[in-house]
Amino acid sequence: MMLENLKKYKIILASQSERRQNLLKGLDIDFEVKTIDSVKETYPADLQIDKVPEYLARQKAEYYLQFLEKNTLLITADTIVVADNQLLGKPKNEQEAKNMLQTLSGATHEVITGVCLTTQEQQKIFSTVTKVTFSVLNDSEINYYVKKYQPYDKAGGYGIQEWIGFVGVKKIEGSYYNVMGLPVQRIYQVLKKF
Amino acid sequence: MMLENLKKYKIILASQSERRQNLLKGLDIDFEVKTIDSVKETYPADLQIDKVPEYLARQKAEYYLQFLEKNTLLITADTIVVADNQLLGKPKNEQEAKNMLQTLSGATHEVITGVCLTTQEQQKIFSTVTKVTFSVLNDSEINYYVKKYQPYDKAGGYGIQEWIGFVGVKKIEGSYYNVMGLPVQRIYQVLKKF
Repeated sequence: MMLENLKKYKIILASQSERRQNLLKGLDIDFEVKTIDSVKETYPADLQIDKVPEYLARQKAEYYLQFLEKNTLLITADTIVVADNQLLGKPKNEQEAKNMLQTLSGATHEVITGVCLTTQEQQKIFSTVTKVTFSVLNDSEINYYVKKYQPYDKAGGYGIQEWIGFVGVKKIEGSYYNVMGLPVQRIYQVLKKF
Repeated sequence: MMLENLKKYKIILASQSERRQNLLKGLDIDFEVKTIDSVKETYPADLQIDKVPEYLARQKAEYYLQFLEKNTLLITADTIVVADNQLLGKPKNEQEAKNMLQTLSGATHEVITGVCLTTQEQQKIFSTVTKVTFSVLNDSEINYYVKKYQPYDKAGGYGIQEWIGFVGVKKIEGSYYNVMGLPVQRIYQVLKKF
């Protein structure tokens, strides 16, 4: 482990996402995973879209305050997809997933992950934006992906690390890991100064 | 498998790189891996740097022509790192790996992968460029990475999918998978029209 300054903390990642757990592991830091089943993800209707991930990351932190003992560092995060100034959440069914991919096809959208680092002494909140450009996806590609990969747990209806990301993502601008769900480079930089 | 037009081909990936094999798997196509031990990677001294990957991908194809039966599609590739107009190959020892990372630290470099698709009837050659920006890496980070991850099989002395890529890569512009060793989106688009 590189970050000597974190040795006094027990780090908790509050996320059910296996992707996020693997991403945090990539930083070579020790941590535990805690999850609560029923965290509601709601935000004020008049909140600026690009502020939603930070708001939800902070909201999630509140659910986990019960685990926040002395020298515990809690990590919560939320990822959204924004296309044409519209927030795309997790698709509820096949048709919604297909519609989302139609929207993303042949265009550039933004993936924003908000992160909240909480201890008894301080709270750091930030978000990171990555631009993702899809090539034009045809109907058979969209149908194949949705049927085979069932992207119902993924904001925007796709995982960049899955088939659709391999064949359809022409380029990104920013952090790839941020699109997967955690801006690990930014988190490392913030943790370094913690 | 999505690409009906490829059904008549036996696809061969000629690469010892497990990363490349996994990337090609991500396209959901069937292929075999063939490798020859002693492929020399040499190129004319006066060759423009950004032409080197295509040259080497084509050169590798020549070594594998013996496998090129009717309806066989051979895929060869080569990845280089270019920083300050200098080509960074695979580091030969610890000191060289550290020097390369010092060069990449706090700067933007280019990763170029050349790809050569060969059948008895045609040969398609192209290369894809991704810009990668590292944050400033300090000595202890560089030492930790080189000792623990031994990046001697990697052009430029780093793997973006390893610790150093997690903590140090601030942003990329282009294809992430191209940095890992294969521009899979581009390959898919070319295969689609094959």
